[in-house]
Amino acid sequence: MSFIEEAYKEGVTLRFAVKEKLFNQQSEFQKVEIVESTHHGRMLFNDDCAMLSERDEAIYHEMIAHVPLFLHPNPKRVLVIGGGDGGTAREVLRHPNVEKCVMVEIDSVVVEGCRQFIPSTAKVFSNPRLELIIGDGVQFMQEDQSKFDVILVDSTDPVGFAQPLFGPEFYGNVLKRLNQNGIVVAQGETPFYEPESQQALLKILGQFFKVVKPYNFTNMTYPGGLWSFFYASNKIHPIKDFKSANVIASKLDFFYYNESIHSAAFSLPSFMKQKLYSVIKEG
Amino acid sequence: MSFIEEAYKEGVTLRFAVKEKLFNQQSEFQKVEIVESTHHGRMLFNDDCAMLSERDEAIYHEMIAHVPLFLHPNPKRVLVIGGGDGGTAREVLRHPNVEKCVMVEIDSVVVEGCRQFIPSTAKVFSNPRLELIIGDGVQFMQEDQSKFDVILVDSTDPVGFAQPLFGPEFYGNVLKRLNQNGIVVAQGETPFYEPESQQALLKILGQFFKVVKPYNFTNMTYPGGLWSFFYASNKIHPIKDFKSANVIASKLDFFYYNESIHSAAFSLPSFMKQKLYSVIKEG
Repeated sequence: MSFIEEAYKEGVTLRFAVKEKLFNQQSEFQKVEIVESTHHGRMLFNDDCAMLSERDEAIYHEMIAHVPLFLHPNPKRVLVIGGGDGGTAREVLRHPNVEKCVMVEIDSVVVEGCRQFIPSTAKVFSNPRLELIIGDGVQFMQEDQSKFDVILVDSTDPVGFAQPLFGPEFYGNVLKRLNQNGIVVAQGETPFYEPESQQALLKILGQFFKVVKPYNFTNMTYPGGLWSFFYASNKIHPIKDFKSANVIASKLDFFYYNESIHSAAFSLPSFMKQKLYSVIKEG
Repeated sequence: MSFIEEAYKEGVTLRFAVKEKLFNQQSEFQKVEIVESTHHGRMLFNDDCAMLSERDEAIYHEMIAHVPLFLHPNPKRVLVIGGGDGGTAREVLRHPNVEKCVMVEIDSVVVEGCRQFIPSTAKVFSNPRLELIIGDGVQFMQEDQSKFDVILVDSTDPVGFAQPLFGPEFYGNVLKRLNQNGIVVAQGETPFYEPESQQALLKILGQFFKVVKPYNFTNMTYPGGLWSFFYASNKIHPIKDFKSANVIASKLDFFYYNESIHSAAFSLPSFMKQKLYSVIKEG
C-alpha cells in the first residue's frame, strides 16, 4: 500500500492510503500532485500540502462561497483569487444572479492537472460565466480597475508565493475593487496551529473594513481539524444581515452548508476569541 | 524521531511526533500507552486509538460535561461511565452544585497510568466529591439502584468491551437511573466515518427519550476532524431551555466551551442531518 501525507507542523502528520498516482509535475511555483486515494476519491497536494479530496472538497468550497453570496443582496460580479482546482468558482456559479466570476490563478499546472483528473471541480472551466485568468492575483489587484461585489481569496498557506495574499497592500487593493456593499472572504488557516497568522490577518482586515469576523469549518483532509475563513465588509454584517429564508428559497442542495450552519460557524471557541480579540476589539 | 499514530479507518492515519515513551501496559482489556509528545503534551492511546492529548483534552471534556450541566436546573448527582483519565469528572466537579460524581471505569490500568503520568486530568481522583468505582459500567447500570441528574457515557469506540455501551439494554437502564429532569450525554463517534454507528445510537436513544440531539466538536487529536456527542432527555431541550446567563454567571474559564458555542454545536452539517433524520424524525 502506498500513501500520500502532509507532514504539517508541530509533529503532526495526516496520511491517506493511495490506490494510484495520477499526476506529478513541478510547476514554476510548486510540486503539483494528484492521486487516486483508497477512500477519499482523488486528492490534490501542492508542495506536499493537502489541497482537496473529492470526498470532502464541498465543505471548503461551500463555506468560502455561500456565506458571502447569501449575504450580498445582489452579487453580480465575483472575483476568486487562487482556487485553481475550480471548486470555489463552481459554488459561486450555482448562484443564478452571478453574471460573471473572474478567477485569477497563478499556476496553470494546477488548472491543467485538475482539468485532466478532477473533473468534479474543474468542470467549472467550461462554464461561459467564468473568466479564467492565469496570472498573479497580487498584480491583478494592483492593475485591474473593474469592481466586484464579492472577492474570495482562496489561497494556499502564507508561505512562498502566496505570502503577499496575507499582506496589507493586497487588502488595500481588495477594498478599492469592491463595490459599496462588497464582501471579501479569505482562507484563514487553523486556529489551533496558526494563531499568529490569524491575528495578523485580523489586524490587516481591521485596517480596511468595519466588520471583520472569522468563521470556522471542519473537514477530513486538512490537518488540525478546525479551519477558518475571515469575513470582512464595510456594510453587511454576516449574522445580523443574514436572511435564512434566502437559503431555503434558493433550493440549492448542500453537502455541509445550510441556514443554521451559516450563523453557527461564527461562534468561536473560547481560546480563539481570546487569541483574536486580544489583537483587535470584537466587532 | 519516534512517532505514535492512530491508523484509523478508510486509509486515514493521524500521527504525532514523540519525545519519550512513558507507560505501556497490556491490561485485561486493552493496551494502555502514554507518551510525551513533542508539541501536544502527554498523550494517552488505548489499543492504538488516541484518547487524549494534554494540549486539547479540555475540548472533549468541556463539551461532554458543560452542555448538560448548564442545562440541568440543579445537578446534584452525576454519573460518568468510563472516562478513566479523569478529565470528564474534573469538568463535572467544577460545578459547585454537584454534590457527588460517581465514576465507573472498567480498566484500572488506565486510571493508574493517568495517575502517574497525566496529573492534569487525574488530579480529580483526589477530589472528595468523586467516588471512583473500578468496574463494568454495563453491570453497574443493571445492579445499582441510585438515581442521577446527569449521566455521561464517556466511552471508547463501539468495538470489543465498549460495544454494550452502545446498546438498547444499557440505555433502558440509563433511563431508569435518571431523575425526572435527567439528561444523558454519550460519546457519539465521527459523522464522516461512522454514520451507521450514529444512526444506531440515535435510534436507540429515540426509544427512551423525547428529545435526542447530536452536537459536534472538533479537536486536534481525533482522526476525522468532526466528532459528536448525543444529548438525550425527556424534559430538557438543549437549546430552548438553555440560559446563557448561567454560563456567564458561573465565572468559569473555558478553553473551548462558551454560551455561544453551546447552541452552535447543535447546528448540524447538511450531510449529517440527511443521514440521521432519514432514521428518526428530527425532534
